Amino acid sequence: MRIALLGGTGDIGEGLAVRWGRDTAHELLIGSRDPERAREAADAYRETVADHGGDADIAGYDNTMAADRADVAVLAVPPYHVVDTVEAVADGLDEGDVLVTPASGMSRDEDGFSYNPPGVGSVAALVRDATPDAVPVVGAFHNLAAGRLADLGTELGIDTLVFGDDDDAVDSITQLAEEIEGLRALHVGGLGAAPEVESLTPLLINVAQQNEGLHDLGVRFH
Amino acid sequence: MRIALLGGTGDIGEGLAVRWGRDTAHELLIGSRDPERAREAADAYRETVADHGGDADIAGYDNTMAADRADVAVLAVPPYHVVDTVEAVADGLDEGDVLVTPASGMSRDEDGFSYNPPGVGSVAALVRDATPDAVPVVGAFHNLAAGRLADLGTELGIDTLVFGDDDDAVDSITQLAEEIEGLRALHVGGLGAAPEVESLTPLLINVAQQNEGLHDLGVRFH
Repeated sequence: MRIALLGGTGDIGEGLAVRWGRDTAHELLIGSRDPERAREAADAYRETVADHGGDADIAGYDNTMAADRADVAVLAVPPYHVVDTVEAVADGLDEGDVLVTPASGMSRDEDGFSYNPPGVGSVAALVRDATPDAVPVVGAFHNLAAGRLADLGTELGIDTLVFGDDDDAVDSITQLAEEIEGLRALHVGGLGAAPEVESLTPLLINVAQQNEGLHDLGVRFH
Repeated sequence: MRIALLGGTGDIGEGLAVRWGRDTAHELLIGSRDPERAREAADAYRETVADHGGDADIAGYDNTMAADRADVAVLAVPPYHVVDTVEAVADGLDEGDVLVTPASGMSRDEDGFSYNPPGVGSVAALVRDATPDAVPVVGAFHNLAAGRLADLGTELGIDTLVFGDDDDAVDSITQLAEEIEGLRALHVGGLGAAPEVESLTPLLINVAQQNEGLHDLGVRFH
């Protein structure tokens, strides 16, 4: 499968790239607005995987070309770049492709982080509204601490929550998630489940900041 | 310490009563609007603890008397009874007492459960507004599956999140929580952190319903 990581030069993009690069044979397309930066990141990720004994198929492109070539595109961009990124790549998304949103909307004050969704109710709803109808949107990969994901020396042992209105797309992303060693994918419902999942992101940051010895936190349901 | 479980004939009250009853020497006051039901529940909980080799100090009262005698009162009532319960017991809460809210507001449709907080933003904020200013409000014990809590044969191995604006009160409830075997208490901030914590409750229910082999779910941050 060909997986595009749009905004893949950022930390969550790096984490997913090196994990899939080490643990699977998928072709990984790092996207950026600046294709030169994407190529540099792809080289670095390939080297990281090689340092851990893997041989990853990773290359860099501009976001539009990465999305055009991919079967699955992950929106690994900050929430305030979600809409412009989707608009930039929409023409390259074909029927049958799947768009994945891992972002949460947050605000911060002296008490810590809070969930601060866009007016449509969630980042996932924002993505859904901006995406062509024929392309299913799936939420996944929230709540993975990027630093831990990118450190291939760390075992994960955590869960990711997958949601969406298209069952086939949800199953396909669930499978991709579980191909990452130590990551368990759990279903949580349709796109209407987005606010509760996206709310976990600020919660994890607050818990990590307020309790000694906890950092790069993930979550396990049991 | 004397701990009142207001609405303690319900499932979360039962779980906390038998756990504290087995694992600590605290005096437990089961509250109900009907003191006869409270006494019956107290007898049953005492018997459960005895079946597991413990000797618990548990008695039944009406909610008002339970709160009046207690140092800590847990609002183990459904969210739509939070305000009337607080109003019924307010006169019995003294300065230095702590009121604990474990409830979440939820709605349900064909897609599952969603977080549906009251207009003031969270159940905890609703409790804060209804409670005398001198009595600190602490959120805790959300996200403990009641059935698992009440089953003393089950090891917990899960976390509870504690939040509130009064540091001493938060510390006191943190300590009470950690006296339950297998329960770890983590800080998450002030009362402003309530929505993200209360949101976990519907999320856990949805995850349990949609994934085979998962039920009575708790959560572990790591």
